[in-house]
Amino acid sequence: ERLSRMAAGWFYLSCLALGSLGTLCVLFTSYWMRYWHGGFAWDGTVFMFNWHPVLMVAGMVVLYGAASLVYRLPQSWVGPKLPWKLLHAALHLAAFTLTVLGLFAVFQFHQHGNIANLYSLHSWLGITAVFLFACQWLLGFGVFLLPWAPTWLRSILKPIHVFFGAAILSLAVAAVISGINEKLFFSLKNATRPYSSLPSEAVFANSTGMLVALFGLLVLYILLASSWKRPEPGIMTDRQVGLQAPGGGRV
Amino acid sequence: ERLSRMAAGWFYLSCLALGSLGTLCVLFTSYWMRYWHGGFAWDGTVFMFNWHPVLMVAGMVVLYGAASLVYRLPQSWVGPKLPWKLLHAALHLAAFTLTVLGLFAVFQFHQHGNIANLYSLHSWLGITAVFLFACQWLLGFGVFLLPWAPTWLRSILKPIHVFFGAAILSLAVAAVISGINEKLFFSLKNATRPYSSLPSEAVFANSTGMLVALFGLLVLYILLASSWKRPEPGIMTDRQVGLQAPGGGRV
Repeated sequence: ERLSRMAAGWFYLSCLALGSLGTLCVLFTSYWMRYWHGGFAWDGTVFMFNWHPVLMVAGMVVLYGAASLVYRLPQSWVGPKLPWKLLHAALHLAAFTLTVLGLFAVFQFHQHGNIANLYSLHSWLGITAVFLFACQWLLGFGVFLLPWAPTWLRSILKPIHVFFGAAILSLAVAAVISGINEKLFFSLKNATRPYSSLPSEAVFANSTGMLVALFGLLVLYILLASSWKRPEPGIMTDRQVGLQAPGGGRV
Repeated sequence: ERLSRMAAGWFYLSCLALGSLGTLCVLFTSYWMRYWHGGFAWDGTVFMFNWHPVLMVAGMVVLYGAASLVYRLPQSWVGPKLPWKLLHAALHLAAFTLTVLGLFAVFQFHQHGNIANLYSLHSWLGITAVFLFACQWLLGFGVFLLPWAPTWLRSILKPIHVFFGAAILSLAVAAVISGINEKLFFSLKNATRPYSSLPSEAVFANSTGMLVALFGLLVLYILLASSWKRPEPGIMTDRQVGLQAPGGGRV
């Protein structure tokens, strides 16, 4: 039993690390845009673009990551599953809303400045991630939240839903990394100190990218650590017994 | 039993898809460097740099991915584990060798042309992935292949080893994506048709990046699909029963 209390402690410590790291990611991205790029506006100028990195990191990575982990909370393992499903769907909807606003910010900026859309690999990967996110949310809503779908269909789709959840986050992190890299090459192109001389902006934004990668890995770790999963009816690991008595799980 | 034969069929189909996709990734990267960048040499010029993308994709993504999946082959579930461990370690050593050669190619090119090393986010992420890969290989060799480590230590380190295996691959894929993106901004900077007008090179290299991302996701899928894992002694899923009778697993 001491071992399972240790497991619970480790889980909450991971969540604390995740919360702090996620907050840092959003703060770092905002500070980068505020301090080196003049801050924010919603007017089609480059100050509108500045919302793009902040909203994508906040929506598509940090809030998305947090929303993914709802069923890893031991509290969600007992009692009815519906409230937790609603929370999961609502958090992801909020994440998706931030993501769409983030897309809108960059498209408006491009239209305003006559810049082509969706040509770089960053944008191809990012738009793929957003498209899959939309499909995933709609399919999840239709199959797992609405009451019509039979259990066998839910059982088949559940591992696919979980896998695509992790896959979309991985794509989003790769898109953020390539986006930060690309933005630094743009903005330091004609600078007195180019990217290759590592001026303070470069060090700061590179570090932001490393934090986002670390956040993504931490989410995947918590998501995949098998002893933290809501037990399926009749299947329970030793550590889960220690964390909480399982409820009658419904897929 | 028909269900478990379907599972085995699905596994081998995934492996076939993986092999084809991995081959395509390497061929596409080579063709990109050959057709648009003048091919290969080992002389410190840009033709030496051209080895960098090819060796990184071949070593750090494709061969690494294949090497990760050794224990997912049902053949590896019966009989002694040592030959499979040797294969796993040897394939990863080959992947690491290609990776080091790929690093050498870019460092030599930089030295030859007086270009700074390790300034972009791409390079920070990539060098982190290579460093973690080295630690992972050495720790895996020391703990799982050499005979000294007690079972309890192996049991503790095994899930960590598996997680870091997937994490390093994810970082490598993100590094490749940002690397392709960065290379296209460099090489199309003064072109008659810039990156933003999507010349054929851009479409081709963007597609290469998308293939690499897809390959990475497919590896993670096969790695994490729980019914394809070598069963721990005493634990076996229905599908695994169908795939093969399990041997006395040793961690």
